[in-house]
Amino acid sequence: MEKLTMEKIVNLCKQYGFVFPGSDIYDGFANTWDFGPVGVELKNNIKKCWWKRFVQEDPNTYGVDAAILMNPRVWEASGHVQSFSDPKMDCKKCKQRFRADNLIEEYSNGSVAAEAMSNEQMQDYIAENHIKCPNCGGFDWSEIKQFKLMFETNRGTVEENKNMVYLRPETCQGEYVNFLNVQRSSRAKIPFAIAQIGKSFRNEITPGNFLFRTIEFEQMELQKFCKDEDSIKFYDEYKSKAINFIKDIGLSDDKLRFHDHDKLAHYAKAACDIQYKFPIGWEELNGIHHRGTWDLSRHSEFSGKNLEYLDPDTNEKYIPTVIEYSIGADRLTLAILCEAYDEETLEDGTTREVMRFKPFLAPYKVAVLPLVKKFHKEKADEVYNMLCKEFMCTYDETGNIGKRYRRQDVIGTPYCITIDDDTINNNTVTVRDRDTMKQITINIDEIVDYINDKIKF
Amino acid sequence: MEKLTMEKIVNLCKQYGFVFPGSDIYDGFANTWDFGPVGVELKNNIKKCWWKRFVQEDPNTYGVDAAILMNPRVWEASGHVQSFSDPKMDCKKCKQRFRADNLIEEYSNGSVAAEAMSNEQMQDYIAENHIKCPNCGGFDWSEIKQFKLMFETNRGTVEENKNMVYLRPETCQGEYVNFLNVQRSSRAKIPFAIAQIGKSFRNEITPGNFLFRTIEFEQMELQKFCKDEDSIKFYDEYKSKAINFIKDIGLSDDKLRFHDHDKLAHYAKAACDIQYKFPIGWEELNGIHHRGTWDLSRHSEFSGKNLEYLDPDTNEKYIPTVIEYSIGADRLTLAILCEAYDEETLEDGTTREVMRFKPFLAPYKVAVLPLVKKFHKEKADEVYNMLCKEFMCTYDETGNIGKRYRRQDVIGTPYCITIDDDTINNNTVTVRDRDTMKQITINIDEIVDYINDKIKF
Repeated sequence: MEKLTMEKIVNLCKQYGFVFPGSDIYDGFANTWDFGPVGVELKNNIKKCWWKRFVQEDPNTYGVDAAILMNPRVWEASGHVQSFSDPKMDCKKCKQRFRADNLIEEYSNGSVAAEAMSNEQMQDYIAENHIKCPNCGGFDWSEIKQFKLMFETNRGTVEENKNMVYLRPETCQGEYVNFLNVQRSSRAKIPFAIAQIGKSFRNEITPGNFLFRTIEFEQMELQKFCKDEDSIKFYDEYKSKAINFIKDIGLSDDKLRFHDHDKLAHYAKAACDIQYKFPIGWEELNGIHHRGTWDLSRHSEFSGKNLEYLDPDTNEKYIPTVIEYSIGADRLTLAILCEAYDEETLEDGTTREVMRFKPFLAPYKVAVLPLVKKFHKEKADEVYNMLCKEFMCTYDETGNIGKRYRRQDVIGTPYCITIDDDTINNNTVTVRDRDTMKQITINIDEIVDYINDKIKF
Repeated sequence: MEKLTMEKIVNLCKQYGFVFPGSDIYDGFANTWDFGPVGVELKNNIKKCWWKRFVQEDPNTYGVDAAILMNPRVWEASGHVQSFSDPKMDCKKCKQRFRADNLIEEYSNGSVAAEAMSNEQMQDYIAENHIKCPNCGGFDWSEIKQFKLMFETNRGTVEENKNMVYLRPETCQGEYVNFLNVQRSSRAKIPFAIAQIGKSFRNEITPGNFLFRTIEFEQMELQKFCKDEDSIKFYDEYKSKAINFIKDIGLSDDKLRFHDHDKLAHYAKAACDIQYKFPIGWEELNGIHHRGTWDLSRHSEFSGKNLEYLDPDTNEKYIPTVIEYSIGADRLTLAILCEAYDEETLEDGTTREVMRFKPFLAPYKVAVLPLVKKFHKEKADEVYNMLCKEFMCTYDETGNIGKRYRRQDVIGTPYCITIDDDTINNNTVTVRDRDTMKQITINIDEIVDYINDKIKF
């Protein structure tokens, strides 16, 4: 197979219903994407696997689903109002906006670490090196300004005192503000974690690279609350849990690597990413961060509420240390799509495209195919109606059977069930495997158990 | 049981971890709520049941998950930019804002239909009847202004031409703009439906009544695309499907009624709600609307794209008619919470609170309880670790067994499994039923099948 490009994945996703450009008929809306019929199943399956592994199977983890719109004081406490921004410059000629640090890093091929420079230093560097606008080639820059990354809106309950409200730029604040609510209502003992899957929003200008960076994105993350003396142990534990999870759902070892952060926040003892080798190169897929007592201390200060935990065994009172583990659901979906894509040359010289999803991630588990519509449709409907009670199925009656197999291959359906005369006469069907292309014959009554056994996570 | 009040449900939800006030430590944020550990499971189970019934089990329905932020032209086409607003008045004394139509309806006890009045007529009525501010008792009103219900934000990619962007006030536009994308990628034939579960946002001022009306809310809805001549047939079909679904997940017949709309949109042939008897009275729970060809025609006009469907059998080209079926996930969760709540006086004169969720909706399917921690914890952990691979479980080792049963009753856990000496000696456990409080003894190896059989939807 030749090298997979992002363009190829984008086109395949649109053609087969994984992902469409957002607001497509209006020529799109930059960095937004809509999941189509097979994409929504894939992404939901990824989310379900994550929840099963990190919430359902861990007696010390509690789920929440917090509101996207929060009291604006939350974002003062978190520091986002003050400092969640990027250095931006406008090209006065073409009116396009760019990140100054990105311009420098691209110009210098990464040899200059712009993130360590002040706005003045960046401005000087751009002037000295005569860095031009990547869009129009002009050299007429505005001054660098800090551009806020939080989307702002107004909650209009009181006219003359409009409240500025933010779309959350991260989900984890929902765990922090509910730390005591969860602890008390669940009578949880430290160490325990609170987990959440939900959408966040960032007013990003950086090119998106398909699902890699979008202005709205879904996070799957948890905050482990522990004693400070145990925090490195849990940091290491979540590093293993994180890498095991993404391997278990199908990412391959040689495309994954840990990357320790060079610079740490003042409160942190450790921080790392796991990077995946996307078609655009090695990029961050998920992060594990030691956050010290920063978040709960700040919320304690800004809310005036005591967020200390009272240890029922020792009567100790303390603000717990937090280990954060976070992964982007959209980014992980992109990684899974890239990893699963394969082209295979068949014996007859033709090529088949196949998405080699693990069966538990596949959008449809089974395709029901009547060999000849005229003769086998009725029986096929019967089988479909039985199977769709158990798992996602699809049905296809058009074209020759080979073409229908190809259509299922490219959306990753692991099993094709063909209904033919033997089904009517002997109650048997053939089950064709996506990867081996081999077929077996089984009794209709055995299908559900046979498939259920194969699609477990 | 005495009449269930909303206040009682709100308090119970907070105490046991179903729902917390949003941004609680900052004294909340009006009309936002966070789902806690058991609430998120309940709501997710409701969403899963809906998706199973309406997408998985229907070969002619295709799911999508569209972005919340859409091209602003979408909301011009839909008519929201021009007319999605409420008539608002400010009390100049206390600076609070109210809906003029609500003031009149409350004042007149519903005898005056304010929705049919012009702003001038409402203003005159309020002046003539000297309707006072419900907050401060003052009588110093501003003029009525139309107040926009869409949250507005800015997509700051280009400084001098900031784009106004809206938080979607309804999810269905995601289906309309993707009509052709879905139809082509799935090779769907009319009649077919596109379904979605997702969040919408409305800048509501009306008092929320807990989960009944929130500024962000999750919709579960589908749009059926059909020939106009079949539209009433599908309208009726979705009326039955809608009522069957909410009955099947546990709402009772005597608390449900259909309510036909008096006024129809100019393009509509029919519209109705299903109302549920909440503690605040009969209120809308879901809607079924005939939308004619309005939506696709408007998008065709505003996008300049031809959104006609080409019938492959007859070569007819036409804009399909749409039947919309929509239900609020938060509102349905509220209805399920209200319906499930029960108080029961026991033989010993004490009262138990019990949430009688259908087992497939219950947050935890099983609680694993070691009879005596010291002797039975190890075995209990073993059983828990086996069961949590299959379904959501909880574990409780504190307090006497009766107290632990009560705690599971009030969060609706249908089965409590007690681990005692017999478990260690004979490999058996007792399974206690939430509703009957009866216990049976079964072998450990039988638990998974026994429970899985009971929690099917």
